Amino acid sequence: MKNIKAIIFDAYGTLFDVNSAAEKCKDKIGDKWEPFANYWRTTQLEYTWLRSLMGRHKDFWQVTEDSLDKSMKAFSIDLSMRNELLNLYKVLSPFKEVPDVLKALKKKFKLAILSNGTPSLLNELVNSNNLNGIFNDLFSIEQVGVYKPDSKVYDIPINKYLIQRDEVVFLSANTWDVSGAGNYGYKAIWINRNNNIFDNLDYKPNFEIKDLYGLLDKI
Amino acid sequence: MKNIKAIIFDAYGTLFDVNSAAEKCKDKIGDKWEPFANYWRTTQLEYTWLRSLMGRHKDFWQVTEDSLDKSMKAFSIDLSMRNELLNLYKVLSPFKEVPDVLKALKKKFKLAILSNGTPSLLNELVNSNNLNGIFNDLFSIEQVGVYKPDSKVYDIPINKYLIQRDEVVFLSANTWDVSGAGNYGYKAIWINRNNNIFDNLDYKPNFEIKDLYGLLDKI
Repeated sequence: MKNIKAIIFDAYGTLFDVNSAAEKCKDKIGDKWEPFANYWRTTQLEYTWLRSLMGRHKDFWQVTEDSLDKSMKAFSIDLSMRNELLNLYKVLSPFKEVPDVLKALKKKFKLAILSNGTPSLLNELVNSNNLNGIFNDLFSIEQVGVYKPDSKVYDIPINKYLIQRDEVVFLSANTWDVSGAGNYGYKAIWINRNNNIFDNLDYKPNFEIKDLYGLLDKI
Repeated sequence: MKNIKAIIFDAYGTLFDVNSAAEKCKDKIGDKWEPFANYWRTTQLEYTWLRSLMGRHKDFWQVTEDSLDKSMKAFSIDLSMRNELLNLYKVLSPFKEVPDVLKALKKKFKLAILSNGTPSLLNELVNSNNLNGIFNDLFSIEQVGVYKPDSKVYDIPINKYLIQRDEVVFLSANTWDVSGAGNYGYKAIWINRNNNIFDNLDYKPNFEIKDLYGLLDKI
């Protein structure tokens, strides 16, 4: 890929493992920890889309709490786990190759995050994982008060860096986010860690990679 | 409830069983018919929300096909089943109490459907189930080119009947649709057929009923 002015990453599910909070509690939750984690994540995303469509924005932390409450009921998780799960969600682990690849990219490119998370959540994620100094910007949708894949979100880095849409390489593990970013005009790359199936939303990604190492061959 | 000027129903999942298409093929699909049907439905709804947020509308039939294609890949369903499933989706069965309750309500109230479906899909659903003459209107979101729960959808019957929002009783089995309609200002009732858990989206329904019979006690 040529003429890259910035490499922009989704955060949740892409750099940081959203299931790691429930996984760290698997001794207490039992075998259902993974379907529970998936349900929590699905509900959280649905709430972001539904709130955006209803014009009733709440920030990502509130949505994370609201979706956790429904998920704990659905899976009969003891209420005493609530605080532990929420605290772990603030310090999600990165996927294992992420720190090394980011440090290598940092030498050549402007790097940023563009995420549904609030500014304070993104700061805590980056700091708790010793990734300070890697990113030029942690862009939060709170600037525009609506969630991905509304185009106002993808406008944020374009307006800050004054670059063209196709000068952005955007990476996400979330198929719908790749579709949103690609339809907007970014060069969108899908990180397909689990051999999933892509969506039918008017866009097929430029590249599909298994993990962030795959990016190093493309740029 | 007092001062009811119209009773408005969601269609898919509320009057008509969205899983009935896959269920009618369960001999061919096997035990996975139900998780497959749920996946298809979830993907279909996600595509309506995502397309609305991206400003890339496609009609409900196209979204139904697009979501079926992803779901058949995800569940390794033989491609020869595609046409059969789609044809069955056009003639979904109503839940068993629906015809009797609608006929009883028709004597006293103005009844309408407000649905994501296209006008031709809604006509075919109603006609194939011998429900002609029951509804004053089959309102389709195609009039406004965006899906529920965007408030422009819930505006449609208000603009046609020139009534107040709280003069509408709205019924849906879809929790997010109840939230959308209730936040908009309708008197929203949740049909909870399967003992599900309600959402945390700024609204709790006025009433929760197990099936449409429950409505007869409320009005």
